[in-house]
Amino acid sequence: MADSLAELQEALDALVEERDWAQFHAPKNLAMGVAIEAAEIMEHFQWCTADESYSLPKEKRAEVANEIGDVLLYLLGLGRTLDVDIIAAARDKLALIREKYPIEKAKGRATKYVDLD
Amino acid sequence: MADSLAELQEALDALVEERDWAQFHAPKNLAMGVAIEAAEIMEHFQWCTADESYSLPKEKRAEVANEIGDVLLYLLGLGRTLDVDIIAAARDKLALIREKYPIEKAKGRATKYVDLD
Amino acid sequence: MADSLAELQEALDALVEERDWAQFHAPKNLAMGVAIEAAEIMEHFQWCTADESYSLPKEKRAEVANEIGDVLLYLLGLGRTLDVDIIAAARDKLALIREKYPIEKAKGRATKYVDLD
Amino acid sequence: MADSLAELQEALDALVEERDWAQFHAPKNLAMGVAIEAAEIMEHFQWCTADESYSLPKEKRAEVANEIGDVLLYLLGLGRTLDVDIIAAARDKLALIREKYPIEKAKGRATKYVDLD
Repeated sequence: MADSLAELQEALDALVEERDWAQFHAPKNLAMGVAIEAAEIMEHFQWCTADESYSLPKEKRAEVANEIGDVLLYLLGLGRTLDVDIIAAARDKLALIREKYPIEKAKGRATKYVDLD
Repeated sequence: MADSLAELQEALDALVEERDWAQFHAPKNLAMGVAIEAAEIMEHFQWCTADESYSLPKEKRAEVANEIGDVLLYLLGLGRTLDVDIIAAARDKLALIREKYPIEKAKGRATKYVDLD
Repeated sequence: MADSLAELQEALDALVEERDWAQFHAPKNLAMGVAIEAAEIMEHFQWCTADESYSLPKEKRAEVANEIGDVLLYLLGLGRTLDVDIIAAARDKLALIREKYPIEKAKGRATKYVDLD
Repeated sequence: MADSLAELQEALDALVEERDWAQFHAPKNLAMGVAIEAAEIMEHFQWCTADESYSLPKEKRAEVANEIGDVLLYLLGLGRTLDVDIIAAARDKLALIREKYPIEKAKGRATKYVDLD
């Protein structure tokens, strides 16, 4: 797996700066972007069954990858404007999940793995 | 910035495996997760202005970071089940954006930076 | 079925006016509200199968009804601020769907019933 | 305002039945539809300010109306499959809001009008 989020962040920062887009990227607007692109991922899964969702046709899978890229870019942008390290945030969240769902209690139960609000 | 998404992926994989949760994590369900958590980010920005959204109160900012972590975890999980490298996907998307919005045309215009579909 | 949306609209208008909330209800913010509450509906369906989703436990069903009410209220509020008649909008959309998906072509095919854009 | 949701429901039911689409309309899938279309409404508001969102260009306003229609159709469909009367659900919700946000406390405060969960 490509590993360096830092490099991606730099490339995104450059793109935004070159186009003078920072003025539009208030956290409020970027948060909307994350949600809008997340819905575009979902669109590809609306009518298939859970089983079918594992084996998307090649072209559809490429479109999903494209939307996944969008979500990650908005997430990075949002992290940037709020000064939130998104990997650290996810790591902290994992720790919370481990605590809330100890293995012996959560094993094999259809429970949300990220429902800690 | 914490840089290694690969490490995070490993930690997530372990958590899912220890709890025997893979059975619930069909791409369809994980895609819903991305969208649900994205909405939880947005909730914190619904009533503030764009300007106010830059300076969240400390506690609110921590909650947003928490939800950002959720989205990234679901995104990673989705990438895993679909065999999509999410960083590579974002990189490909950046290239598409550069093409669709050349600097000379896009500079200073309130246009979506991720609207390529 | 309760039929009068007009009555509901009046009750909503009164509630908003009495609380002096119109100042916060820009279409942008109400649109976010529709999406946020829509995600809260979805949350109840994330981990169940399509089949299971038909027979929610009674309490969960009440919670879903509650979120459905939220979405309808935001939708009405949004229609109000934009001067859009939401029933007329849905009727127009139905006509478009009938056109785009003629019975002889669409019958029994897993296609979106509202995918016209 | 067009008032009869019952008529719209009948027209929707006929459309679904004629195309034999009920088989795809599990509540889980319809809930995804509500969220997907809600995001499409939002898309039109992502880059404008709250003030600008009141006065959309005519064409954009028509597109928003179109997406509002989509959300209402999915909401009606979801209500149908779950046997939830969506107007009654909204009415119940209004009562809850009145209780949770009494006028004397809520007046002029930027608070969510539908945040009761």
